[in-house]
Amino acid sequence: MSLLNKVIKEITPVSKEAAQKAQKHLDNLIKPIGSLGRLEEIGVRLAAITGQVVPDLPKKCVVVFAADNGICEEGVSSAPADITAAQLLNMTKGLTGINVLSKQAGSDVYLVDIGVNADLPYDKIINKKIRRGTRNMLKEAAMTRQEAIQALETGIAMALDLVAQGYQVIGTGEMGIGNTSSSAAVIMGLTGYPAEEVTGKGAGMTEKDYQRKKEIIKAVIAKHQPDKQDPLDVLSKVGGYDIAAMAGVFLGCAYKRVPVVIDGVISITAALVAARLNPLAVDYMLPSHLSAEPGYSVVLKELGLKAYLLLDMRLGEGSGCPLAFFLIDCALAIGREMGTFEQGNIDGSVLVDIREDQSKS
Amino acid sequence: MSLLNKVIKEITPVSKEAAQKAQKHLDNLIKPIGSLGRLEEIGVRLAAITGQVVPDLPKKCVVVFAADNGICEEGVSSAPADITAAQLLNMTKGLTGINVLSKQAGSDVYLVDIGVNADLPYDKIINKKIRRGTRNMLKEAAMTRQEAIQALETGIAMALDLVAQGYQVIGTGEMGIGNTSSSAAVIMGLTGYPAEEVTGKGAGMTEKDYQRKKEIIKAVIAKHQPDKQDPLDVLSKVGGYDIAAMAGVFLGCAYKRVPVVIDGVISITAALVAARLNPLAVDYMLPSHLSAEPGYSVVLKELGLKAYLLLDMRLGEGSGCPLAFFLIDCALAIGREMGTFEQGNIDGSVLVDIREDQSKS
Repeated sequence: MSLLNKVIKEITPVSKEAAQKAQKHLDNLIKPIGSLGRLEEIGVRLAAITGQVVPDLPKKCVVVFAADNGICEEGVSSAPADITAAQLLNMTKGLTGINVLSKQAGSDVYLVDIGVNADLPYDKIINKKIRRGTRNMLKEAAMTRQEAIQALETGIAMALDLVAQGYQVIGTGEMGIGNTSSSAAVIMGLTGYPAEEVTGKGAGMTEKDYQRKKEIIKAVIAKHQPDKQDPLDVLSKVGGYDIAAMAGVFLGCAYKRVPVVIDGVISITAALVAARLNPLAVDYMLPSHLSAEPGYSVVLKELGLKAYLLLDMRLGEGSGCPLAFFLIDCALAIGREMGTFEQGNIDGSVLVDIREDQSKS
Repeated sequence: MSLLNKVIKEITPVSKEAAQKAQKHLDNLIKPIGSLGRLEEIGVRLAAITGQVVPDLPKKCVVVFAADNGICEEGVSSAPADITAAQLLNMTKGLTGINVLSKQAGSDVYLVDIGVNADLPYDKIINKKIRRGTRNMLKEAAMTRQEAIQALETGIAMALDLVAQGYQVIGTGEMGIGNTSSSAAVIMGLTGYPAEEVTGKGAGMTEKDYQRKKEIIKAVIAKHQPDKQDPLDVLSKVGGYDIAAMAGVFLGCAYKRVPVVIDGVISITAALVAARLNPLAVDYMLPSHLSAEPGYSVVLKELGLKAYLLLDMRLGEGSGCPLAFFLIDCALAIGREMGTFEQGNIDGSVLVDIREDQSKS
């Protein structure tokens, strides 16, 4: 059995038992029940994922997959395609958004060339190049089915390797000019939503260019008619190597019962691909910020998730992940460090049960 | 001139020049223009407040004012009134939500007794008690006008003292059973919004108790008819000592050009009082999370602000502030540590301008 098929087949459900125990523990803390809202929800979700009531998850990283997109030939992006390689190099120097935000969260960054249209012989760039960019999907399939599987398995292997290195939470990032177009096409292919609802302006473009981008994506879908029921068909015809590899990370993390964080629209597109390959994978995912790209909200709803941060960010690179890492740290610290009603009884101190007591109101 | 009048009179506008320079600097960083969204907005706001283009603001704290509310006699809260003192003591032990979250953000917590109905001779509780709780505002004014001024000036003095100690960002927190009722009444008094739109369930209560809470708040406003044009009239008739002191912190921080963070509904009610005393104070405020309490959104709109975090929290204690502190750290790190296009030219490296270039699309 291939690595992809093995992982898809062997993903198990999260632990309801650990989730229930975590909720019970949170309800015993010295606060009104539920008053820490979605920080509590994060704590319960992490318990369900890891199987531990209050896990300690200090070691975190974001893995950034960089790839070029053949569709850039059609002028769908406001930036020239050689920015993919240039910004990846900037990342090796620690000067980009994802580097700076990761440092604040105390997390690491891994850079993977999964399909950049340049030779990148740098120590800090892991070379997993499948091809120097996808093909122009307006003219032919973006990649072969075998390449799609190779990219997915590269992502899975990357996740397994990071987990083996001790990483306990993994964030998903990307760099690839034109990848909001591939994402829009994949979302359309997997959901049937119209181009108008899933296509955004990417890093920024004029209204005229935006109309053109939507027309091109519609034409791509019309040409390939990808099979909604076959995620590999959609991915290979209209996807990107970065999206496929990130989908592999989502699957690999679910397989290893490790929490995996979604960034923006490209990342969540990969999450959707993973979810279509095995719906159980969704329970291992955590969102971060509400991306300004319209396709993001469409997929978030499909996955039944809700973002934590309202920051109108549209950078990509995995930049939302370190922000979510801090919320994860907060959620776990609450479970680990807040006082419980029982503690108050044990040490005879003045700890008082301040839980909701409706009988007294 | 009294301290209150002096501070209100001498608050100056934020620096538009520093804001413009900060925006220009952010636009030069190696990312598409505006793509870090509201993290950039935070950076610009902090520049405007401090007058520095990229300030360094590591030293932060939350100041928590605790006070009891006479209206609790009417059964407006789901928790018994003695929880105010008990939870304040839990805070001295580092076991509450605000302690745990502050530790994650690397910030300090100061506890002030501004009106708790208990003797609290503890080193970690700063004694500024005005009275053992406000009066029952359903029967008489919650406090005298002089007490309102005293509480405001205590908050101002606290802000000045913290700034003198080197604190560069200050968060506002509270502990006081019944203070969502006082907040609802103050919001009604200052905005004219109906009780239905500004009253929430506080820490949690039954539908029947919630209806009763709204009726009581309506009766309080009907009895006192506070003067919308006179914030001190509103505050003294239907406010709380915690709300008044926090309003003082907002004013004191604006006076000292120090960023001050809003937590939940009680904190933002105090922010509204400060804004009505001097509208310039608003530009020194930063929101944190979108509180689940309905009055919060009403006031946020009045102040022209938008929350950063969607966490459905309703704990109070200042618990949203440490979360905003992390976003502040991220926003400032972006300005300080990200590469600029100019840097690329200076050191001859491969740094490339990846700013939005619409001419190439």
